[in-house]
Amino acid sequence: MTQQFKKKPEQLDYIFRPRSIAVIGATPRKGAIGREILHNLITYEFNGKIFPVNPNYSVIHSIKAYSSILDVPDAVDLAVLVVPRDHVISVVDQCGEKGVRGLVVITAGFREVGPIGLKLENQLVERLHYWGMRMIGPNCFGIINTSSKIRLDATFSKVYPTEGKIGFMSQSGGLGESILEQAREMNLGLSMFASVGNKANISGNDLLEYWKDDPDVDIILLYLENFGNPRRFTKIAREVAAIKPIVAVKSGTTSKGAAAASSHTGALAGAEVAVDALFEQTGIVRVETIEELFNVAAGLARMGVPRGNRVGVLTNGGGPGILATDSLVNLGMEMPEYSDETKAKIRPQMPPDTPINNPLDLIAGAGAEQFKTALEAAMQDDNFDTIFSMFVPLITVNQMEVADAIVDVKKRYDKPLCACFMGVSEYSQGLSLLRSNGVPATIFPEPIAKMLAQIERYRRWKERDEGALPNYDVNREAVRKIIDDALHEGNEALVGEKALDILDAYGLRIAPYEYAHSVDEAVQVAASVGYPVVVKVNTPKILHKTEFGAVKVDLRDSDEIVSAWKEMEQKVRSEVKSDEEFSVVVQKMVKGGVETVIGMTTDPAFGPLIMFGLGGIYVEVLKDVSFKINPLTHADARAMIESCKAYKLLTGFRGSEPVDLDLLAESILRVSMLVSDFHEIVELDVNPFIINPTREQTATVDARFVVKSLS
Amino acid sequence: MTQQFKKKPEQLDYIFRPRSIAVIGATPRKGAIGREILHNLITYEFNGKIFPVNPNYSVIHSIKAYSSILDVPDAVDLAVLVVPRDHVISVVDQCGEKGVRGLVVITAGFREVGPIGLKLENQLVERLHYWGMRMIGPNCFGIINTSSKIRLDATFSKVYPTEGKIGFMSQSGGLGESILEQAREMNLGLSMFASVGNKANISGNDLLEYWKDDPDVDIILLYLENFGNPRRFTKIAREVAAIKPIVAVKSGTTSKGAAAASSHTGALAGAEVAVDALFEQTGIVRVETIEELFNVAAGLARMGVPRGNRVGVLTNGGGPGILATDSLVNLGMEMPEYSDETKAKIRPQMPPDTPINNPLDLIAGAGAEQFKTALEAAMQDDNFDTIFSMFVPLITVNQMEVADAIVDVKKRYDKPLCACFMGVSEYSQGLSLLRSNGVPATIFPEPIAKMLAQIERYRRWKERDEGALPNYDVNREAVRKIIDDALHEGNEALVGEKALDILDAYGLRIAPYEYAHSVDEAVQVAASVGYPVVVKVNTPKILHKTEFGAVKVDLRDSDEIVSAWKEMEQKVRSEVKSDEEFSVVVQKMVKGGVETVIGMTTDPAFGPLIMFGLGGIYVEVLKDVSFKINPLTHADARAMIESCKAYKLLTGFRGSEPVDLDLLAESILRVSMLVSDFHEIVELDVNPFIINPTREQTATVDARFVVKSLS
Repeated sequence: MTQQFKKKPEQLDYIFRPRSIAVIGATPRKGAIGREILHNLITYEFNGKIFPVNPNYSVIHSIKAYSSILDVPDAVDLAVLVVPRDHVISVVDQCGEKGVRGLVVITAGFREVGPIGLKLENQLVERLHYWGMRMIGPNCFGIINTSSKIRLDATFSKVYPTEGKIGFMSQSGGLGESILEQAREMNLGLSMFASVGNKANISGNDLLEYWKDDPDVDIILLYLENFGNPRRFTKIAREVAAIKPIVAVKSGTTSKGAAAASSHTGALAGAEVAVDALFEQTGIVRVETIEELFNVAAGLARMGVPRGNRVGVLTNGGGPGILATDSLVNLGMEMPEYSDETKAKIRPQMPPDTPINNPLDLIAGAGAEQFKTALEAAMQDDNFDTIFSMFVPLITVNQMEVADAIVDVKKRYDKPLCACFMGVSEYSQGLSLLRSNGVPATIFPEPIAKMLAQIERYRRWKERDEGALPNYDVNREAVRKIIDDALHEGNEALVGEKALDILDAYGLRIAPYEYAHSVDEAVQVAASVGYPVVVKVNTPKILHKTEFGAVKVDLRDSDEIVSAWKEMEQKVRSEVKSDEEFSVVVQKMVKGGVETVIGMTTDPAFGPLIMFGLGGIYVEVLKDVSFKINPLTHADARAMIESCKAYKLLTGFRGSEPVDLDLLAESILRVSMLVSDFHEIVELDVNPFIINPTREQTATVDARFVVKSLS
Repeated sequence: MTQQFKKKPEQLDYIFRPRSIAVIGATPRKGAIGREILHNLITYEFNGKIFPVNPNYSVIHSIKAYSSILDVPDAVDLAVLVVPRDHVISVVDQCGEKGVRGLVVITAGFREVGPIGLKLENQLVERLHYWGMRMIGPNCFGIINTSSKIRLDATFSKVYPTEGKIGFMSQSGGLGESILEQAREMNLGLSMFASVGNKANISGNDLLEYWKDDPDVDIILLYLENFGNPRRFTKIAREVAAIKPIVAVKSGTTSKGAAAASSHTGALAGAEVAVDALFEQTGIVRVETIEELFNVAAGLARMGVPRGNRVGVLTNGGGPGILATDSLVNLGMEMPEYSDETKAKIRPQMPPDTPINNPLDLIAGAGAEQFKTALEAAMQDDNFDTIFSMFVPLITVNQMEVADAIVDVKKRYDKPLCACFMGVSEYSQGLSLLRSNGVPATIFPEPIAKMLAQIERYRRWKERDEGALPNYDVNREAVRKIIDDALHEGNEALVGEKALDILDAYGLRIAPYEYAHSVDEAVQVAASVGYPVVVKVNTPKILHKTEFGAVKVDLRDSDEIVSAWKEMEQKVRSEVKSDEEFSVVVQKMVKGGVETVIGMTTDPAFGPLIMFGLGGIYVEVLKDVSFKINPLTHADARAMIESCKAYKLLTGFRGSEPVDLDLLAESILRVSMLVSDFHEIVELDVNPFIINPTREQTATVDARFVVKSLS
């Protein structure tokens, strides 16, 4: 055998770079999976030994077969299992005994079929641990490694991909064949492909780690249906994305996270919100469709990551140029003008007085020469990070010559270049020439625009100022006591004074308030905190106080307090059957400013999510909120604030001064710290948190927590 | 000649259904446009006489050529001009003299190259009028009619489309070849194709009218870059769309309409807003890309308009099923469960205990038989309006057999059926079999989902309750007088009393107000309209009163009025150098309710647009507004209200009662009537218009108009 492990082999090397493979359940029957996998291994010339195993045959596909893996005379790195489900466990034990290091289990009928299958799968995992083996599957389509030193195709695909630098992980076996067909269609080379099936042992996370430093993998593509361990995924993906781009399709939506949490935050945070936050924070390029996945992959593989978002478009047709411009601009790309130098270079071939704009509309009937001159000038123009060359077929122009010109320019200049040969067939020779010479090319302009915009998002993420985690001086002991006391009393919902005390201990500003048990006391308190005031009924019995009419705002004198007290007392007495003494909270009304909400909810899979949004109707009607997975950096907090649709309200509106955005970010980060420090907190709402231009006028008006014992 | 005009020929019949054609500027030189057009006419066997015209040749492409159109011995219906620009006018005159009825002018160099070209184009149009001829072009790619009775290809395309029922109008000649290539690629038949070039004489509107009752055209596709006469287009498109679907790509954005109008409405109403309103109100299916255009066309051509939005999905792969579900549901399609009857029919071929859901995941390795059984059951299931059959290739399943099964079922049941053969090549035989047998089919599920959703939008538009135009009892004379007086005084901006009087005359409710010229008078007025009140400085010198501090709201007693007066008077005196006497407006404050804005702006091309949105920050920060082209029906007004993102605020929120939506719609319609009645009004803002649960509490607080003399 010729291939060698690069270094001390990792465990996954025994699976993706094995020196010998046993196909257990191999069979000579055409169309059977056990035959097709063996056939693929042989046909694509696996660079090591293959041992078919099946007690019923002595030779399969011209190779000596063995009754059992234990009969194989040589060492076996990888065993591929295509045996009936109920034989899997015993075969795995034989593999363990034999000293096999890695398994790919194609066989289905485990977790995906219900309780009996799940039990079997758990047993299977136990046996793996016992023997110290790693496994891909079960219920999968197999794996591929195209490296010329390996040439491993342990799938039952009809298609063998060309060698390339892309690692592809698919959670769907059913999509396996489609994915490989599509990669070939796009002329995209793969390095490794893995259909991970039920991910009972080797997960997507393991593959990400394996591919992180793998020199054969420059780009990672993922088709995901769910996250086994999203917290680990978040951490690993962020590390890997900093080194090489990860592009992912996430399909399906889980309903788990949409549990009916009682707070606003909980109600808004479905699992999809967590998934979105995950992709945003980890720098994974999230695309909507498999088609986009391949378009972005082709862009990354063929032209890399441009230095910025400035695109120079040139075209031989006005209409196509407009289509490209619409798409690029709508997606946030910039199209600056061509430099004077470039214009001077192009001018001689343009009709006199024709303006040279971006998109640059070459003369009607422009051919290879005109394209070449214009492209060369554009590639040297510092106004652009990427050049996008569009071509519409014309009977008078030779398509192949234009494609040749584009390829020639691409080779001589070091700037990302992509192309659209509009409306030609997917099998056009021009398109094919471009693709096989490293020019991302499509038959419509929109996919190119989308691809550029998605890669630009990745660039921005990579170049972002990550910011540090916050570290404010806080009073942890005070919070520890409040939470411990509450849990000791069996009290999981903290409202009013206790909730505000927790926030106070973490340095959030609180609007001055006091309890009042008589109308006279209410008037006294109001005088001491200062008019105008807000008066709220003090009872946990009324959940939605505003709707009930248990909140009176902007009271300006003692008369207004007296009439508010009377009205509310009567309403509570008649509608809330309670023997509690009637009392109120009198709180200084925070003047002006913008109502915001800082919240937190716990996703069962993703853990704590911090929420920020504009308060009141903004959060409730417009859902103008942003979520991120805790913990947050300074950059995260600022990004959350800036992502609000109503952000303009914070930066000064209709003559109002801008609010203190630093204080707002700080307040969000103090909440983030609180959540990091106390895992007992499973839900919280700081609502409203009124932010103003000055620290003094800024205050928390109300808050609530849900805490749970950690044990 | 065999073809006949269907009836008394319309003028456009001489162009699209001519009995004889002269190609003026024909030449034998390969690659020259004058040769390629002649070649296409001959090659595709035009069903009439062809006369090449060129003084330099006596025979071209084996046909006798003439020196001049005047030498042609027979009658000529259509002349195609490929002569140098500066000969066009004289050739047109010869055509007129000859009695030619229609022209297609391929020659470029007119309006699109600047003033000299525009002048020539105007001359050209004059000559057409003089001779009573109609013309396509100039600066175009030509026309096609595939009818077997006509077989007219007067373009220089390499591709001749198959016969079909689609009329295609392209404003871009550059896209012509791409469009025809793409139609062939998708196996879509066209009836007529027209590249309309500069639309100097025959416009898109003319073609819409021509195709409206044409039995050869069932579906109309448009590629548009602008609207020559959008008011006429709106009218015609609405009529045509009621009969047959129109699908359009509109590319490019005009900057015209984005003129810096001074009101909020004007600032928001760019021309794109008018274009959006146009598409929405006319029922044209607007798509974003040429690719979508063809996908929707294929759906309409192959399966028609389904009866509703309920889709049954069946698939042989879990992953693809999830992708399809995500797309369909995100686009508003419904996926109800399969009926019990269907489940019973499918049950025997499913593994025991496997749930039968939608998407229906057929057993792994499902082949033609399983697809056929499931499809037959699904097609008979009344829970669905459309069936979507997905297939992923598997080595164990014969793709062609599955395609055959789908086609067979499609032929036997009368229900829309579409398919996705995932990840196969565009040239897969399966895909091709489906398409040529009337099943819309793609290689990814998302385009099918998008296609279904777009056709569903058309269905909803067709089935909408159109509603009537409003006809309220109003006082036109009063408004006539105010406007005439203002224009007579040279006053184009109407604010305050005059603006409110206009609205009052049209039956909008106005919040009671009076002017006060002294602080004592202000206190008196407040007492008479009733506290709380709003006090505003009465001067046109301050444009943004709130920002300036020239508005004080919620004043509750005389003390508050006195201090407001003092503060504002001092500010105005010191900051606004004006010799006007200081005075204020004292207005009853409208309590509660929701602030809205009803506005109107005039687009230079589209005419009056009515705007509705939620007031204050909603309109200014969130741009939560809706535009429609005037006049509005009742249904339009309701649709505008319901399309607001913050619509929930109107229907009762946080315990508040729902506002009077009928009154709100009525108020919008009264404004619409006002705009229809007085063309002098070019801009107006009713802002805020506070809508409440009762008519009595609802009121206009402020308004402004811009009027212009009609002369």
